[in-house]
Amino acid sequence: MRTYSLAIHGGAGTIRKAEMTPDLEQAYQIGLETALLAGHTILEKQGTALDAVEAAVRVLEDNPLFNAGRGSVYATNGRHEMEASIMCGQQLDAGAVAMIQRVRHPISLARTVLKASPHVLLVGAGAETFAREHGLRFEAANWFDDPKRWAQLQEARQAQRVQLDHAARKMGTVGAVALDLHGNLAAATSTGGMTNKMSGRIGDSPLIGSGTYANNATCAVSCTGIGEFMIRGVSAYDVSCLMAYRGLDLAAACHEVIQVKQTDLGGEGGLIAVDAKGEVALVFNSEGMYRAWIQQGYSPEVWIYA
Amino acid sequence: MRTYSLAIHGGAGTIRKAEMTPDLEQAYQIGLETALLAGHTILEKQGTALDAVEAAVRVLEDNPLFNAGRGSVYATNGRHEMEASIMCGQQLDAGAVAMIQRVRHPISLARTVLKASPHVLLVGAGAETFAREHGLRFEAANWFDDPKRWAQLQEARQAQRVQLDHAARKMGTVGAVALDLHGNLAAATSTGGMTNKMSGRIGDSPLIGSGTYANNATCAVSCTGIGEFMIRGVSAYDVSCLMAYRGLDLAAACHEVIQVKQTDLGGEGGLIAVDAKGEVALVFNSEGMYRAWIQQGYSPEVWIYA
Repeated sequence: MRTYSLAIHGGAGTIRKAEMTPDLEQAYQIGLETALLAGHTILEKQGTALDAVEAAVRVLEDNPLFNAGRGSVYATNGRHEMEASIMCGQQLDAGAVAMIQRVRHPISLARTVLKASPHVLLVGAGAETFAREHGLRFEAANWFDDPKRWAQLQEARQAQRVQLDHAARKMGTVGAVALDLHGNLAAATSTGGMTNKMSGRIGDSPLIGSGTYANNATCAVSCTGIGEFMIRGVSAYDVSCLMAYRGLDLAAACHEVIQVKQTDLGGEGGLIAVDAKGEVALVFNSEGMYRAWIQQGYSPEVWIYA
Repeated sequence: MRTYSLAIHGGAGTIRKAEMTPDLEQAYQIGLETALLAGHTILEKQGTALDAVEAAVRVLEDNPLFNAGRGSVYATNGRHEMEASIMCGQQLDAGAVAMIQRVRHPISLARTVLKASPHVLLVGAGAETFAREHGLRFEAANWFDDPKRWAQLQEARQAQRVQLDHAARKMGTVGAVALDLHGNLAAATSTGGMTNKMSGRIGDSPLIGSGTYANNATCAVSCTGIGEFMIRGVSAYDVSCLMAYRGLDLAAACHEVIQVKQTDLGGEGGLIAVDAKGEVALVFNSEGMYRAWIQQGYSPEVWIYA
């Protein structure tokens, strides 16, 4: 019997209830619900998992609360250097972009790379040229401006004088994973990276196998956290391998990758995943992760803290 | 009992004996032997696997015959955009660079990222700035110029009018994998990419898990071939997972990843690998792969065809 599932995340990290106002908490919840609804509507109408994860991530990219698209944090050069990737579990097709500026929906550019390019990963000016050739929407630089994010950059610049890896605490990313009624899995991840990151640094979000992975035989995964540790752990693909080669179920595989392996490596973050049966896993070793999910026949769930 | 092993490759692809002159064949053999010797000397003196793979790849990067460093092919913009990565199996430390120009030894820049940066992957101008700050050697643009490579670009540009993926047949990459007498594994990969590649395209060579992977518990792997398929297959890490989770030995894991999975996916290329016992595997599904290896107590082997 065919079913559908959708899970999304808005980043993992140090999210303390004491530092959150009721209004802000509500704004996060509404943001997550709206993104979930965008993907859910597609899955309910027998749309594809690929369309659903792209739609959910586009909504998160448009929301200034989340570190992706419009809400991207500032790199040390004062610019927004965004990255995204998307993968379809049916044929293992993938597309990814990094170091791109002013593209409104980086996830849709990644989708266009998947669809219209023989390549998987395009970065920088070459990726932006490709975006223009394919009619992707660009925004003026001020579309991405945000006084709060700018203040975060100034704070990080200050702190860097005494504490080099302060920026590592900012781990916002958004992502979505889905199973559709046709039995296909898909995963999508998008981010603005780390506040005050050096220009040219690429994290796990645009890297297939590290930040994003989907395979109809196993699962779809989107990671968030300190990208360097996810890259060294090849974390998204690791979940799939633990299922395929060791026979773990989705929950056990996700636990092993985040709670055991990432924790041992010194990484902090989390991941969301769905499997071919529609099971959902949302796992993190940080204080919180903005997350929401829905399974066919159940009500949506929206969570922030542990 | 501790032992050491070293394997190197100079790329896989369409290598036909009929198109090879005796002089050129000898030049390739000497090139591979010289690189092997550079790494071997280090391992013999109880040096580290990380030093050995870097040293071997530096020799290949200086040899105009191989598509890496000095011998890099031209991207469609007429420039050399190089990429490289290196990983140490002891702590899973890794460093990688992409889209870099005029750095003489991209593999040494990747090593510097591993050593001196909190990041894993740096690209473009940011990576070049990092290289200057750390005293890496740059060469004038004409150091990388080569009439044969330039002719290949013109040929590919012509062919592209009628055959879009002509460039995909050029799959040169160099790489090295080693086990040292301390029981540590390391892997390194470096390339100029594909002739006539679009600017901004990144292949598997700088991607940890796809083109390069090392883990003392399993193996060290360096891939060569059509990068997009290696990325979608997360091929380097897949060898490690098949050993760790399914219990395959090195030869069986490498066979599965290249002869079965890459072939099924439509990919063409190969990989070299060593395991913690010093076993060596050199596997490809293309017509040939420039390759050489040595194990403690044995004579060096140098091969080109199947």
